[in-house]
Amino acid sequence: MEIKEIKIEDLQPERFIKQQVKEVFSVVGDGLAVNALSGGVDSSAVTIIGHKALGKRLKTYFIENGLMRQGEAERVCLLFKELGVLVEIIDAKKEFFAALKGLSDPEEKREAITQTFYKNVFGRLVRESGAKYLLQGTNYTDVEETVAGVKRQHNILEQLGIDTQAEFGYKVIEPIIQLRKSGVRSLAKALGLPEELYNRPPFPGPALAARVIGEVTPQRIATVRAATKIVEEQLCNSGAFQYLAILHQDRVTGVRKGKRDFGLQIEIRCWESKDALVGTPTRLPYELLEKLAERITQDVPGVVSVTYNITKKPPSTIEAV
Amino acid sequence: MEIKEIKIEDLQPERFIKQQVKEVFSVVGDGLAVNALSGGVDSSAVTIIGHKALGKRLKTYFIENGLMRQGEAERVCLLFKELGVLVEIIDAKKEFFAALKGLSDPEEKREAITQTFYKNVFGRLVRESGAKYLLQGTNYTDVEETVAGVKRQHNILEQLGIDTQAEFGYKVIEPIIQLRKSGVRSLAKALGLPEELYNRPPFPGPALAARVIGEVTPQRIATVRAATKIVEEQLCNSGAFQYLAILHQDRVTGVRKGKRDFGLQIEIRCWESKDALVGTPTRLPYELLEKLAERITQDVPGVVSVTYNITKKPPSTIEAV
Repeated sequence: MEIKEIKIEDLQPERFIKQQVKEVFSVVGDGLAVNALSGGVDSSAVTIIGHKALGKRLKTYFIENGLMRQGEAERVCLLFKELGVLVEIIDAKKEFFAALKGLSDPEEKREAITQTFYKNVFGRLVRESGAKYLLQGTNYTDVEETVAGVKRQHNILEQLGIDTQAEFGYKVIEPIIQLRKSGVRSLAKALGLPEELYNRPPFPGPALAARVIGEVTPQRIATVRAATKIVEEQLCNSGAFQYLAILHQDRVTGVRKGKRDFGLQIEIRCWESKDALVGTPTRLPYELLEKLAERITQDVPGVVSVTYNITKKPPSTIEAV
Repeated sequence: MEIKEIKIEDLQPERFIKQQVKEVFSVVGDGLAVNALSGGVDSSAVTIIGHKALGKRLKTYFIENGLMRQGEAERVCLLFKELGVLVEIIDAKKEFFAALKGLSDPEEKREAITQTFYKNVFGRLVRESGAKYLLQGTNYTDVEETVAGVKRQHNILEQLGIDTQAEFGYKVIEPIIQLRKSGVRSLAKALGLPEELYNRPPFPGPALAARVIGEVTPQRIATVRAATKIVEEQLCNSGAFQYLAILHQDRVTGVRKGKRDFGLQIEIRCWESKDALVGTPTRLPYELLEKLAERITQDVPGVVSVTYNITKKPPSTIEAV
């Protein structure tokens, strides 16, 4: 099926919402659906559309995969509670870390997360709930990059010819697949989501696993999580499209208390972009860069070196993994 | 033996030169000495002091270890020819790459270079020449960092209790061991060296091997050499203390002609420092950083990402390896 982009200038949010609510309702009928909410703008918008269409016949889960940002599960559930949507937290940390053990190749890591998410965790939830439908926040850039072979997005299945009905036991509905990020933001605003949600920087499907070069372990996730918290605190008012911290696998020589310390390196990226398709590093003030390096090397155990990425996309990509 | 620093404000270059020339002459007597010239300010200053003291009884070699910058051997030999000093180029590329094969740990790499340099290549040259003395450009910062255990400098032997006479068959003479870099520069100027030599940024003993994270191979050296050339061209007028390109072992996702390219990352460092003991990243203009990233990703095969280091020393060090 060819997917047709709706450009931001052609998007009428109220009309689009009505259409999608109607569409979800007509597909699911009086059946049950499930969806996973990560707290990003895509899954947040889809959660509200789904609840408008199905009410309590949509069951929304927050999958705690151990790869999310600090305090994320609690924060997101609280925000949606205030919007009248109950979200159930599913603790699947052990399953995800077991699936990721020993993997270093980015595509293998993405595949492990996809399989654990759709087959194991969601397959189980669907079976237990009796739902036959999964609502999902795939957007137009995800489709394009996956089809072009740039990066395998974890939420692209049908576009790759995977029959979710046959393979996982449910059908996938993707209400925002025609929109790019800017369209989703304007949609989310029209849906009454708080600015804290619709103005969040994009966060990748594989979560912090996409921010760790090499093997993903609980300890390495803890390191990049701590660095991410500092980067987000310092850059949330930068106006940038996206900002992130990446833990490298390479070790570099550092010095602590006069002694050699063969330590870790964190890379910071901060992007100016409209749609994630092309991007330019933000020209952050040096005072801010130095503050970031200082806080990260002081507060994140083992880190002796911090870099800032200065490459455009292309040839870089937004995320490193 | 305790080594006493001579601070830049206490250094009288002319007097220091006379003392050292006399000292070298008194130690070597009518014997023969050898020294290795890398083209850095340290070994350049020592070469001139040695020739003032010994004339043709000092034999100066440029060891082509395969790890030097582009065109380095020819350029250095030509410069010294103009100063009346004949330099012989020794091709030892194969020996160095063989010694480095399979090594990833920075200290093991340094040790392999030290052993190849002092034991194999220099041991042979000394035996062939009949020299009993090796002149060497060890400076005060090298001593300090090695003794403190921060980083093993390749030219520190006696300070670590290694008896070069017994182990390698020659005695090491270190005329500038009491000086830091700023002192050596002022000495080099007084010795009549061209500004191109005494105002060069410092370059590490293990040469480009110190600029490659992970295994050192001819191909990886070629990559970092090409990036180094671009960085030096772009930053030679920055006024910075030192600037360098580092090839990472980690691979990152990039995009070329619309397709995924799992490529290489180059890290740039540019330092403000007086003595290499502490340092701050230079606040380079973003136009320049972007230009660097563009040239490196365009001209160095395989590179899709370039970062700029924003960490102070400490906890970083000047070099990464």
